[in-house]
Amino acid sequence: MQIFIYNSLSRKKEIFKPIQEGRVGMYVCGPTVYGPPHLGHAKSYVNFDVVRRFFEYAGYNVKYVQNITDVGHLVGDSDDGQDKILVQAQKENVDPYALAYKYETEYFYFMDKLNIKRPTISARATGFIPDIIEFIQKIIEKGYAYVTKQGNVYFSVHKFSDYGKLSNRKIENNLSGERISVADDKEYPEDFALWKSAVGGHIMKWNSPWGVGYPGWHIECSTLSRKFLGETFDIHGGGIDNIFPHHDSEIAQSEVANGKPFVNYFMHNNLVTVNGTKMGKSLGNFITLNDLFEKFDPLLIRYYILQFHYRKPVDFSFNAISKVKEQYDKLVENFSQVKEKSLNKIINLKSNKINNDELSEIYNNFISAMSDDFNTPLAMAEVLKLSKLASNALKNNESETLIIINSIIKVVEDVLGLEFVCDKIKSENKTKDSELLNLISDIRTKLRSEKNYQLSDYIRDKLIELGVDVLDKKI
Amino acid sequence: MQIFIYNSLSRKKEIFKPIQEGRVGMYVCGPTVYGPPHLGHAKSYVNFDVVRRFFEYAGYNVKYVQNITDVGHLVGDSDDGQDKILVQAQKENVDPYALAYKYETEYFYFMDKLNIKRPTISARATGFIPDIIEFIQKIIEKGYAYVTKQGNVYFSVHKFSDYGKLSNRKIENNLSGERISVADDKEYPEDFALWKSAVGGHIMKWNSPWGVGYPGWHIECSTLSRKFLGETFDIHGGGIDNIFPHHDSEIAQSEVANGKPFVNYFMHNNLVTVNGTKMGKSLGNFITLNDLFEKFDPLLIRYYILQFHYRKPVDFSFNAISKVKEQYDKLVENFSQVKEKSLNKIINLKSNKINNDELSEIYNNFISAMSDDFNTPLAMAEVLKLSKLASNALKNNESETLIIINSIIKVVEDVLGLEFVCDKIKSENKTKDSELLNLISDIRTKLRSEKNYQLSDYIRDKLIELGVDVLDKKI
Repeated sequence: MQIFIYNSLSRKKEIFKPIQEGRVGMYVCGPTVYGPPHLGHAKSYVNFDVVRRFFEYAGYNVKYVQNITDVGHLVGDSDDGQDKILVQAQKENVDPYALAYKYETEYFYFMDKLNIKRPTISARATGFIPDIIEFIQKIIEKGYAYVTKQGNVYFSVHKFSDYGKLSNRKIENNLSGERISVADDKEYPEDFALWKSAVGGHIMKWNSPWGVGYPGWHIECSTLSRKFLGETFDIHGGGIDNIFPHHDSEIAQSEVANGKPFVNYFMHNNLVTVNGTKMGKSLGNFITLNDLFEKFDPLLIRYYILQFHYRKPVDFSFNAISKVKEQYDKLVENFSQVKEKSLNKIINLKSNKINNDELSEIYNNFISAMSDDFNTPLAMAEVLKLSKLASNALKNNESETLIIINSIIKVVEDVLGLEFVCDKIKSENKTKDSELLNLISDIRTKLRSEKNYQLSDYIRDKLIELGVDVLDKKI
Repeated sequence: MQIFIYNSLSRKKEIFKPIQEGRVGMYVCGPTVYGPPHLGHAKSYVNFDVVRRFFEYAGYNVKYVQNITDVGHLVGDSDDGQDKILVQAQKENVDPYALAYKYETEYFYFMDKLNIKRPTISARATGFIPDIIEFIQKIIEKGYAYVTKQGNVYFSVHKFSDYGKLSNRKIENNLSGERISVADDKEYPEDFALWKSAVGGHIMKWNSPWGVGYPGWHIECSTLSRKFLGETFDIHGGGIDNIFPHHDSEIAQSEVANGKPFVNYFMHNNLVTVNGTKMGKSLGNFITLNDLFEKFDPLLIRYYILQFHYRKPVDFSFNAISKVKEQYDKLVENFSQVKEKSLNKIINLKSNKINNDELSEIYNNFISAMSDDFNTPLAMAEVLKLSKLASNALKNNESETLIIINSIIKVVEDVLGLEFVCDKIKSENKTKDSELLNLISDIRTKLRSEKNYQLSDYIRDKLIELGVDVLDKKI
C-alpha cells in the first residue's frame, strides 16, 4: 500500500518512505497545559490520531511521541511575557506543577473521550532539562547561539541561512511580524531564546552553565524528538499556527545541532473557526471540550471533525453539528444492527477477496481516500454508501453480505477511531419495556372483559413474580 | 474536629496537628510502573484516598503528592539486580519510556475506576534528576555518603545513628535480611545506593558529578517530597512492605540533608492476602485489576476494601466478594432510591443540627469513627444502620427524614469515595424486557390453545408494531 502525504516542507504530495522499513516515527506538538482543552485541541489530535491509525492499519509499527509543555511557553508565544503556566498558577493559587498536572489530566481525559489513542510516549518538558541543556550546549559549540550577560541564550537566526524554509518567510519580513519580541540583550530581534534567565518569582527553574533559568519553548521539541525518534525522523505534525516561529525554529535548532535533516515529512492541520470566524479566548467564542461534551457525544464531535480534510479548517456551529447528528445517529443505528445480525463475525479484508462488487468498491475507495493524504471526507462518503447497502442487507437479512459489511465497519472503526455502538438500544429497551407492559395490561383488560379470569389472573401472578406492581382497576 | 492518626514513628495514636493551619501536606509512595496494577495497589491507594478525602471533608486544603517510579527500582528491591523498568522494556521490546508511560496510564485508568482522586501532583522520578543530583551532593557534603571507583554513591548507614528507627531494626540484624545486597564496592553491606553507575545497556541514564548513571530507588521520594512539601511535612504514607528499607532510608537521607525531622506522621497500610496467603506473582495468586474489574464493579471492590481497617490486611476471595456484593447491592439500591425520592435535596450537616436522634447518632458515629485513625469498618457499620432507616423512611415516604438521610449519604460518598448510583436499573430492564416477551408468548400459546385467535392475532399485530419478530409455531 502506497501512502501519499502532503509535505509542508516541499509543499506537495509525496509518497511516504519510512526511514526504517515497517516503522513510523512521528512527533506531534502537544498542549501547553495551562487551561482547559478546547475544540482546537480536539481537531488537531483527532487528525493526527487518524494518521497514526491508518499507518497502523497499513501494517506499520508507529512510535508516536508527544510533548507536554509544562514550562517555557511564554504568553507572547515568542520570547516576551511571562510563562503561561506560572501566570495561571498564580491565578489559581497553586503550585505550577500542580497546575500543569491538573490540565494535563484534563487534556487526556477529553482526548480519551474522543477515542484518541494515547501517545507511545508523552514527555513533559520539565522532565528532560538535562537533555535540553546538552542540546543547547551543542548549538553554542557549533557557533549558532550566544549567551548574554543577563544569562539568556539566544539562537542566531541570521547564521542559519535556511531559517524560515518551512513557513517560507524571509528574515527581513519578520521584523514586522507580531510574534517577534525585541529583548534588550538580543543581537537581532529575530533571534529566539533557547534558555531564559529566571528572574522574579519564577518557581520552575534549574541550574545551567548559564545560570539559573528555564528552557525556551522551541527547544523542548527538538530535544524530545531527537531523544525518542533520532536525529532525523519520519513525520512531524502540528497545527498551522505552529509553523512559524515554532517549527521553523525547531528545524534550525535540530539541523544545527545534528548536522542532518530534521524531519522527512512535516504535516500541518488547519484550525477551527466558529461560525466562520477565528476561535479565540479574547473573541468570546472559545469552546471548551467540557462544555461541548455536555451537549454532544464526543464521538459525534470526532465524526464532525472528520467531515473535513485535516488541511482544511473545521467550521463549528451548533447548527452544523445538529445537522450532522441525524446522519451520524442513523449510521450508528444501522451499523450496530449489522454487528448484531452478523453476530459480529468478521473476515480479514486484507487477505480475503470481497465477493461483492459494490462492497469491494467501497472498501477500496475508502482505503484509497485514506492513502491519498488521509482524505477523511472522501472516506466518509464511502462510509455513507456502506450504510445504504447495510440497510438493504438488513432488510433482506443477507447474512453473508452482513458479515462483509461488518468487516468493513471494523476497518472504519479502527482507522477513523469511531465506534458504532448503539447506546440508544438501552433506552429503546426501556421504551419497549413500558410498551410491553402496556400491551400486557391491555391484554388483561380484554381477557377480563371476556370474563377469562383464569388467564387474566395467571398473567397477574406472573407479573407479580417479575416484580411488576399490578393495580386492577374495576372495569 | 480532632483527628487521631496512628503514627508508625511513635507506634501510637496521636492527635493530628498540621504544620500550617488548615493545610495538610501528604506524600504517598506511588507505583513502580513496570507491570499491570493489581489488588495491592487498589488497597493502598484507596486507603490513602480516604485519608485525603476525610481531611478535605474536615476542611483542610490537602496537597497530595505521589511519585511515579520510572527508574531506579531494582529487581532485588534493594541495590541488586537490574532496573525493573528496563527488564520489562526488553521483554516487551519497547523504549523504557514507552513502557513506563503505558503502565502509568494503566495505573491511573484503574485508579480512576476505583474513584480515587488524582494526586495534586504526580511526579515521575526521571523528571527530577537535577534535583536528585543536588540532593545527593548535599548528603555527600555532610559526610554521610561516599563515591566509589565504580561511580556508585552509597549512603553510610552506620553514620546515621537513627537508621532503622521506623522499622525498629538494628543494623546488626539487617545483615541476615533478604533485602540487603552485598555489592563489591560498598563499605558496609547495609549501605544503600543513592546513585548507580550505568553499566551495560542502561538506556535511562544521566550525567552526574560521579559519572553517567541513574538514581537509587529511595532518593527519589526524599527529593520529591522536599521539593513539593518542604523539609518537614505532615504525613508520609505507604504500604508496610515499604517500611524497610525504603522509608527508613528516606528518613536517613532527608534528615541528613535537611538537618530537620523528615515527617511528622508516618502512616502504613497493611497488605492484601488471597485466601489467607500472601499475594505474589511467583505464588500464582496474583490478581490484576484488569481481571478483577471484568468480574466485579470497581466500586464494589472499593467497598470491600473499606470493610477492613487500613492497618489490617484485606483477605481476598471470590467467595468473600460475592457475599459482600449482596449487601452492597441493597445499599446502592436503597440509597439511590433515597436520592430519587428526596429529589437529591441536601442540608449542610456541619452547620445544621439534625432533628432526628437516630440519624444524628449515625452521622456523629460515622464522623467519630473516621476521626479515630480512619476507622472505615466502624464507619461502614453506621452506613448499614443508615440503610435500615432509609428503608423505613422510603416505605413511609417521610420526606424530611429522607432529606437528612440523603445529606448523610452525600457525606459518606464524599468521604469514602463511594457512589450509590443504581446502574442495575438498566440491566434489570433488559432482563425484564425478555421476561415480558416470554410472558406474552406464553399468553399467546394459551390463547391459541383456547382457540381465542382474535386476541392472539391482536397481540401478534401489536408485537409487530413494536418491532418484535413473531414466529408462530404450530401447536
